[in-house]
Amino acid sequence: MAQPIRIVVDAMGGDFAPQNEILGAYQALRYFQEHNINVEILLIGQQDAIQTAIHQHGIAPSQFSILHADEVVAMDDEPAQAFRKKRQSSLYLGLQHHKDGHADAFVSAGNTGAVMSHSTLILGRITGVSRPTIGTFFPTTTSQPTLVVDAGANVDCKAKHLFEFGIMGSIYVQCILGIERPRVGLLNVGEEDSKGNDIALEAYALFRQSTLNFVGNIEGRDILTGTVDVVVCDGFVGNIVLKFAESMLTFLKAKFSAFASTGIIQKLLMAAAKPALKGALTGMNYEDYGGVPLLGVNGVSIIGHGKSTPLAVKNMILRAEEVVRKEVNQRIEAALTS
Amino acid sequence: MAQPIRIVVDAMGGDFAPQNEILGAYQALRYFQEHNINVEILLIGQQDAIQTAIHQHGIAPSQFSILHADEVVAMDDEPAQAFRKKRQSSLYLGLQHHKDGHADAFVSAGNTGAVMSHSTLILGRITGVSRPTIGTFFPTTTSQPTLVVDAGANVDCKAKHLFEFGIMGSIYVQCILGIERPRVGLLNVGEEDSKGNDIALEAYALFRQSTLNFVGNIEGRDILTGTVDVVVCDGFVGNIVLKFAESMLTFLKAKFSAFASTGIIQKLLMAAAKPALKGALTGMNYEDYGGVPLLGVNGVSIIGHGKSTPLAVKNMILRAEEVVRKEVNQRIEAALTS
Repeated sequence: MAQPIRIVVDAMGGDFAPQNEILGAYQALRYFQEHNINVEILLIGQQDAIQTAIHQHGIAPSQFSILHADEVVAMDDEPAQAFRKKRQSSLYLGLQHHKDGHADAFVSAGNTGAVMSHSTLILGRITGVSRPTIGTFFPTTTSQPTLVVDAGANVDCKAKHLFEFGIMGSIYVQCILGIERPRVGLLNVGEEDSKGNDIALEAYALFRQSTLNFVGNIEGRDILTGTVDVVVCDGFVGNIVLKFAESMLTFLKAKFSAFASTGIIQKLLMAAAKPALKGALTGMNYEDYGGVPLLGVNGVSIIGHGKSTPLAVKNMILRAEEVVRKEVNQRIEAALTS
Repeated sequence: MAQPIRIVVDAMGGDFAPQNEILGAYQALRYFQEHNINVEILLIGQQDAIQTAIHQHGIAPSQFSILHADEVVAMDDEPAQAFRKKRQSSLYLGLQHHKDGHADAFVSAGNTGAVMSHSTLILGRITGVSRPTIGTFFPTTTSQPTLVVDAGANVDCKAKHLFEFGIMGSIYVQCILGIERPRVGLLNVGEEDSKGNDIALEAYALFRQSTLNFVGNIEGRDILTGTVDVVVCDGFVGNIVLKFAESMLTFLKAKFSAFASTGIIQKLLMAAAKPALKGALTGMNYEDYGGVPLLGVNGVSIIGHGKSTPLAVKNMILRAEEVVRKEVNQRIEAALTS
């Protein structure tokens, strides 16, 4: 049997830590066991809290290794300050454990900004990468999601950075979705090659000359159609579109309940529509996609939503195993140094 | 009775010209007559086509003045080239008519890029304005829409431009929605004042020092909540968010019909849900808002969607009258030169 893949889970990250982290880790472990995948999970965080949660949920303590970390990076901690002041945090020590070669991947649903900056500072960058980036999958009208990269890590970008995001995103989609030649599109204000701001124009030229499967400029309306597999933009645009998209569901719910409140017939209609709506909107659930990797760091760091449920944590851990097994980082280095 | 407000309607602009333009103009005229508002409408375009359409719809020809223009700027004409080569177009001659003082406003559902550039080149800019801008109303969960400005006119912006967009947007919302002190938010990746790219940081400082009712940074998720009345961003971000938002309805429809196709019960449920969905999504219809003005040009130029229906054209004309009557331009000049 091959060497186990060793994954460190930040038991203190996320709004519902350590409960959801431990339940998610347990579910992941069972999945790996059922599928004969050799994975070891190490929980890092405040030992007492972890042990209490394990006990509460009736999980056999022998399932996990536990590494104690005295401090916790809170969801509202300022990342740079947390990095300087909380050297005993589960985030810091967990990443250090990975850096030191005792683990192959790190997973956290904690303070996103802190997970990003700690990961970059502790793990460093893959040779050839200027800026690590995060990508997020958006659902589409097809059966495959689209990766939007950068989804918020880098708000000021040069054309060269966008180009690297495209390369990393393409490799990630190749490995995770199994698409041989992912179609890469540059998010812009029009399809013609003369469109866009200065940076988009320059990035367009870089993509055009590359060996990527670059399909050209795409527009905001093309993100959800599955026209491309990778949407490249800077993190300023990516973050705004991502948060806007997330708010659409809330908006629709508000509109639906406002409609229901206009009369008894409307109320009945809306009640009848509910299962249909729910069914139709399946697949827009972030839990299914689990976390997103910080691409370009010299290690595997999977970042999850603060509100991660056990299912989301489980999927983050599965994702970590996949990124290690499929050698995403080795491919990125090869592509960027060739 | 006061002098009439004279509005030139580009009868050749839009995908369904001149039919929808003429029907919309007629509906607008009836509205003005019923409300005792003194407006004269001049249709500009190919005389034969206009007269045929008027005749087809049984409209008394005396309702409108008609000004002949030999050429038509097509929806796919390159704006700069159309400006140089089609000097007899309804777009060019209509704006020139307005510029020469024979009309108070110009309305077109034609080629958006061409209407913008023709308007800027022919009408010039209001004193104090660096860059004319377009704003678009987004629906919100409250009863009032939010103006997103710039919605695509300027893809490369400096902080100063964003600041001017905020001023113009604030005045426009004041006049059109009757909000005395519109809340202005800067679209950014986080609420803290330290967030954002270089331009957003610089713009934040300008807004902070201003007399506008600036509420600070807002995020993508705040656009649809009605937290602010004016959302300021550059036209690159604005265009992408606008097109993304427009595609959400198509996306939902696709999801709903995919759900309906999974079985007979799902089909029945979705059929039952249809009126509810339609009712709930009322107010997301661009037709209701009519066109958007190109703010900052030295004149009134209302730009409509290429697919404008008669109702949309009618509302564009009503909007033109309102912008003239409420002296939006005079207020912008006063604010930017004080």
